[in-house]
Amino acid sequence: MSAGSGQDRKRDRLMRTYLDCYPCFLRQAIEAARLVAADEIRQHCILRAVLQELVSFELSSSPPEMAHRIHRIVRAESGVDDPYREAKRAGTEQALSLHPRSRALIAAAVDPLETAVRLSIAGNIIDLGTAPDYDLEATVDRVLAQPFAIGDLDDFRAALARSRGRLLYLADNAGETVFDRLLIETLDRPVTYAVRGAPVLNDATREDALAAGLATVAEIVDNGSDAPGTILPLCSPEFRRLFDGADLIVAKGQGNYECLSRSDRPVFFLLQAKCPVIARDLRVPVGSIVLKRGEGLPGGT
Amino acid sequence: MSAGSGQDRKRDRLMRTYLDCYPCFLRQAIEAARLVAADEIRQHCILRAVLQELVSFELSSSPPEMAHRIHRIVRAESGVDDPYREAKRAGTEQALSLHPRSRALIAAAVDPLETAVRLSIAGNIIDLGTAPDYDLEATVDRVLAQPFAIGDLDDFRAALARSRGRLLYLADNAGETVFDRLLIETLDRPVTYAVRGAPVLNDATREDALAAGLATVAEIVDNGSDAPGTILPLCSPEFRRLFDGADLIVAKGQGNYECLSRSDRPVFFLLQAKCPVIARDLRVPVGSIVLKRGEGLPGGT
Repeated sequence: MSAGSGQDRKRDRLMRTYLDCYPCFLRQAIEAARLVAADEIRQHCILRAVLQELVSFELSSSPPEMAHRIHRIVRAESGVDDPYREAKRAGTEQALSLHPRSRALIAAAVDPLETAVRLSIAGNIIDLGTAPDYDLEATVDRVLAQPFAIGDLDDFRAALARSRGRLLYLADNAGETVFDRLLIETLDRPVTYAVRGAPVLNDATREDALAAGLATVAEIVDNGSDAPGTILPLCSPEFRRLFDGADLIVAKGQGNYECLSRSDRPVFFLLQAKCPVIARDLRVPVGSIVLKRGEGLPGGT
Repeated sequence: MSAGSGQDRKRDRLMRTYLDCYPCFLRQAIEAARLVAADEIRQHCILRAVLQELVSFELSSSPPEMAHRIHRIVRAESGVDDPYREAKRAGTEQALSLHPRSRALIAAAVDPLETAVRLSIAGNIIDLGTAPDYDLEATVDRVLAQPFAIGDLDDFRAALARSRGRLLYLADNAGETVFDRLLIETLDRPVTYAVRGAPVLNDATREDALAAGLATVAEIVDNGSDAPGTILPLCSPEFRRLFDGADLIVAKGQGNYECLSRSDRPVFFLLQAKCPVIARDLRVPVGSIVLKRGEGLPGGT
């Protein structure tokens, strides 16, 4: 097989970008520019650089590839290495304030695994890329009661029973990390928690995972990349070895779904479908909660 | 005074563009591209040309100047001279179906002028540039009951009493025209109804005004321009003479407001504030109904 067709196969494994993503890219760029640049002339400069990048962007690339470029431009043009540092700190603090109640809910649950999965999905609302305005407490209440649009919980349970190695857990956003910690506690098995290799958007880095207390329940690694998703070709060789070797993977959030939804590895996706493009890809309504068995796993267990 | 400073003064009379307009420009471009091009490759081509144009667009220009360029690109790239023809026909037909009820409402009203003004503002919902999804009947009911966020009705009444010449009425969208016809009937005076000089978005052209029955109540003229607003430097000398000579002008909709809000001519603006940028400029909430005396008119009558 030629290198070219190998490349094509990799391409096919990424969720592609749709024209509907473009206005959202610009919205995200404007919000980021406003975080790092007080005056509109500088913000406009950043937006122009993003527009220039968008002109040559290919629809066959995944949305996180464009978001990756946007946030690199924002950091390079502003000289601010972590524009979302304060937002991430606030997100983690808010999630920690709900931690005692969340833990008590799991302890009192008829099915602690399901409640912990739901809480972890509830935490996925803390996503400044998609929807900067959210009500975390209201979201927790909603997600605890809301039917799953895709709910492969039995498959997840069976996969956990089959799994013999360390579970690889791919983090998404800072603050959401606190809810991940609860799910990992509930799983009660060795877990490797993989964060982004460098700041991008409000995605969790090692620093954010430590602030959320993840070190008490998992080994924290980083994926070596500053993309807001798991773009494997951009990840470190160490992370890719972990990914290729894991016999069970949990991937949180839209960015990881967009990058890994076509993967042949044993991945379960836990997320809220917050944008119309992802909702369409999943064939669920916007606002749905999803626990989805990836294509690399046997179904109907 | 130099030509340069004259140009600057003209600039100051246009509402400027904000960064928040950019995602909306792309949304509008995508919607227009989908109307004229069935396949995504052609749609993407159009979007790329629009992105290229956006890179060099200046914030000191008004939003309708960018919309003007977008729809020129859409028509040029597709070869379709009036992408919204069918949408405009449907909008007019729907408005005509409500015409008997609307006319009866005015006839039965305690204050026919206020009811006719409200209906004309209700018709402003038929705006495919801002909000392509709307419920016309529900909007009519809402606008008949909703308090004005800005309601210079007494000033409008006084200006009508003072006016000695033909009233110049600047149209906005096809379908909305039907409601304009009701207001013009109620005004019961000679009116010149000015439409766009060529198709752009779902803005009314002479053909659309004729389909709405405007010829029975007003003299129809066109402004000689294909911009979705009244960009005076792009209008015909004949229209500009009319505009400069009118002792009372009614300007419908957001596009006309963006172009004329700083004019020193005697303009009343009738519109729904459908976008956050215009709502902020007017200092009203999104969704507000507005009858606003322009800066060229005396207030407090």
